[in-house]
Amino acid sequence: MSEKQYVTYGQSCGCGCGCGLQSPITGCRFSLGVMSDRYIDVILSAVGKVDTSKVWSQTDKLSTLYRGRAVHVEDALKACFIHAYDPDIHMTMEATFSKGCPGDVDADRFMAEDDVLMNEPAIAGVHFPVSAKISLYPMGVENYMQHIAHVVNHAIDLGIYEKSSHYCTILSCDVQALFSYIHDVNEYCAEHISHYIFEITFSVNSPTKE
Amino acid sequence: MSEKQYVTYGQSCGCGCGCGLQSPITGCRFSLGVMSDRYIDVILSAVGKVDTSKVWSQTDKLSTLYRGRAVHVEDALKACFIHAYDPDIHMTMEATFSKGCPGDVDADRFMAEDDVLMNEPAIAGVHFPVSAKISLYPMGVENYMQHIAHVVNHAIDLGIYEKSSHYCTILSCDVQALFSYIHDVNEYCAEHISHYIFEITFSVNSPTKE
Repeated sequence: MSEKQYVTYGQSCGCGCGCGLQSPITGCRFSLGVMSDRYIDVILSAVGKVDTSKVWSQTDKLSTLYRGRAVHVEDALKACFIHAYDPDIHMTMEATFSKGCPGDVDADRFMAEDDVLMNEPAIAGVHFPVSAKISLYPMGVENYMQHIAHVVNHAIDLGIYEKSSHYCTILSCDVQALFSYIHDVNEYCAEHISHYIFEITFSVNSPTKE
Repeated sequence: MSEKQYVTYGQSCGCGCGCGLQSPITGCRFSLGVMSDRYIDVILSAVGKVDTSKVWSQTDKLSTLYRGRAVHVEDALKACFIHAYDPDIHMTMEATFSKGCPGDVDADRFMAEDDVLMNEPAIAGVHFPVSAKISLYPMGVENYMQHIAHVVNHAIDLGIYEKSSHYCTILSCDVQALFSYIHDVNEYCAEHISHYIFEITFSVNSPTKE
């Protein structure tokens, strides 16, 4: 009888915090929810239109994952979302940014040396309204609520904050403003938090009006 | 010109950890992604079939939220997912359990005194396969990776673990086994972690075979 292969997260450094390993890789795992019989076409077409030459990319049955430098991961995600947008279809996207996970490995990524965005020129002029809920999880630190307050207050400063709700913050704005904000959050977190997760659920064309 | 109303998370106790406040409320915010032209009917029908007499419930344009004692929140979520299931439709559900948030308030909840589950009798006999990705975020503690390892290893013990992937763990099993595991995780976390978030994305009838 073979022994079970358990995971051993948090045991490499003794304290469980993963100190010593600080991965430069930003990852984003996301899933599109396309409320239409045409969902396969919409998703595959959008994923196929993204220039992924500066990120590592993998699609499985649950989600698509981009890994690389933050600016290129953001650029690829934004392109996929915008390419999937159809004014006649209600669509959601659940996206999870993560950086600094102690369980991360220095693999499955492409670290482009330059900042030239591959997708931005094709999508910079596209505008449509988006609702989103966001949640930030700064890991391993006691003062995590202060980091959360910082990014929420930044949304208030930008005028894209709609309201606070249980377990999340609701934003409402143009798609360009939302991705600009996401970039700001990733930049702030990379500078101030060793390991963070930033969750965003986007929604467009919801039939529910509040 | 009116002053901006900023949030002040983490400032009540000075240290930012929210110590002193330990809410007994478990919440779950979730969104169904129904990949069909019939998504409105499927979602509204499922939400309407759930007996929510032992949870506080609110639906907005982005998600539905249940709050109350963990067993009743789990019971309501399970009922909603099972009632939404259609063997001919690819569907996802993003669900976020949370307990102990320092920003939480002792409101918007119903704390039933008994453990009698309102929905379980109607759904206990339903079986279908589910894929899921899970991520646990124990907040405010350095040894968070050890708690994550514990819940992943419990999935391995139960035989529902498929693989580890970047930023999440993939499970694959019957719907009954998955919700039983979710209950175990919430029970473990409530006992060992003052504030945690447990994210699950369910998927059924995906056209993508790996």
